[in-house]
Amino acid sequence: MPDALRPFADVSAVRATGDGAYEAVVDPEWGVGTKPNGGYLLTMLGRAAVASVGHEHVVTTSAHYLHSPDAGPVAIETAILRKGRSADHVRATMLQDGRACVEAVFMVGTLEQATVPHWDAGAPPRPTASRDDGLRVPGTSPTGLHVPVMDQVDLRLDPATASFARGRPSGSGELRGWLAFLDGADFDPLSLLYAVDAFPPATMEIKPTGSVPTLEMTVYVRALPMPGPLTILHRAQLVEAERVDEITTVWDSADRLVAQATQLAGIRLD
Amino acid sequence: MPDALRPFADVSAVRATGDGAYEAVVDPEWGVGTKPNGGYLLTMLGRAAVASVGHEHVVTTSAHYLHSPDAGPVAIETAILRKGRSADHVRATMLQDGRACVEAVFMVGTLEQATVPHWDAGAPPRPTASRDDGLRVPGTSPTGLHVPVMDQVDLRLDPATASFARGRPSGSGELRGWLAFLDGADFDPLSLLYAVDAFPPATMEIKPTGSVPTLEMTVYVRALPMPGPLTILHRAQLVEAERVDEITTVWDSADRLVAQATQLAGIRLD
Repeated sequence: MPDALRPFADVSAVRATGDGAYEAVVDPEWGVGTKPNGGYLLTMLGRAAVASVGHEHVVTTSAHYLHSPDAGPVAIETAILRKGRSADHVRATMLQDGRACVEAVFMVGTLEQATVPHWDAGAPPRPTASRDDGLRVPGTSPTGLHVPVMDQVDLRLDPATASFARGRPSGSGELRGWLAFLDGADFDPLSLLYAVDAFPPATMEIKPTGSVPTLEMTVYVRALPMPGPLTILHRAQLVEAERVDEITTVWDSADRLVAQATQLAGIRLD
Repeated sequence: MPDALRPFADVSAVRATGDGAYEAVVDPEWGVGTKPNGGYLLTMLGRAAVASVGHEHVVTTSAHYLHSPDAGPVAIETAILRKGRSADHVRATMLQDGRACVEAVFMVGTLEQATVPHWDAGAPPRPTASRDDGLRVPGTSPTGLHVPVMDQVDLRLDPATASFARGRPSGSGELRGWLAFLDGADFDPLSLLYAVDAFPPATMEIKPTGSVPTLEMTVYVRALPMPGPLTILHRAQLVEAERVDEITTVWDSADRLVAQATQLAGIRLD
């Protein structure tokens, strides 16, 4: 473990301050350049949402990113939109110095341990290599951008989808690999909100660029993850008008589909 | 045209009542059974969002469906989350009798006429038949559910993905086809919010069921659609724990990808 390891449970903690309000501290290490990771911020909002209602697990969330906060203190305001027997709906907004940074709505319900797929369309591509042969993503991107979060997690790419690291992007717009926390923590529905946004931009396998900031991200948590590393597929469909969509699929160590996400991000590829 | 044709522009109209509030009337014909279509409701919210800011086109929106409104009057409240040079962000909430029904956030910006794809992952499956050979979806589902909206639009399925209509679902979880308005109206970014939710559940090609109510839906409008019918691909990935995700891809008459959506819906397949 690096000296500066900041466990995810600590850096994403929130503290209730009353009347549905919470406070948290954005860690400088959990991001790209000086910008915090969007999934990391979403986990903070999710913790506040879960803390404010009677159910336990985030089942869906959708977030719009309005303004990237700096590292440091943030406030979170929650509002309960609906309380239900099987699920509650909560809006959570992150503010810094009074300015709205991220707004998300959460459906918070209960995911059962023992569910099994009723029907599955079939397997999207998984890594063809083994995790032991995966390439650990370093803390500096091919374009020279400092990516401190890569020193906080064990993120490995299938060499078949890491051609960009050798200076020759394959053009596939697709990354496959694995994610684990360096402190050995297992994933839960809240940390899955980070996992879906943990990978480098799928556009790295088209053309490496500067940061690809998330504009909107939606996550569906489909099952409780088993302990162990996650397997992740992250792929782009269309780059147009300086925006790119990315679809992310996450499986647990038992190869169960546990989370799905879609995001639209800004990008300059020219 | 049927006698009872209610043009989409009329049934999705909103009227400002001051202070960022709007009123609208949910039409009884634009839904499934007695429940209004979720994309139709989202268009109403989108009209209110666009009316409340300085930009013109919905670029992204994500919505949580809290409570299905009945046909009849609804109120819409908007709140501007951020005003920007290139885009504004607006929250819009639909209420009926004081109860929140749908809450959505919109990024409203400007889509240029002349954009072209910079990169495209490749074509997901389109219909293999021609639209003239498409099967018009009738106003009664295979399970006997009345679907009045099918008499308001010209929705045709590729026969290759309409095996359920012959009582033998293929098991693919995928529908392909075309959508047009019966009054000849062309699509715009607001009516695309309906188009992404217009198709029958993709699960019809697994097993026909009762209604498959949308819990969350996220839409990205990627380009301004050209006049003419839309081509649509609507497919499910995973059915588990009485929920199904569906991904929808929409092309305009010039075969340009104009909208992408993902939704999580409730389903009972047993």
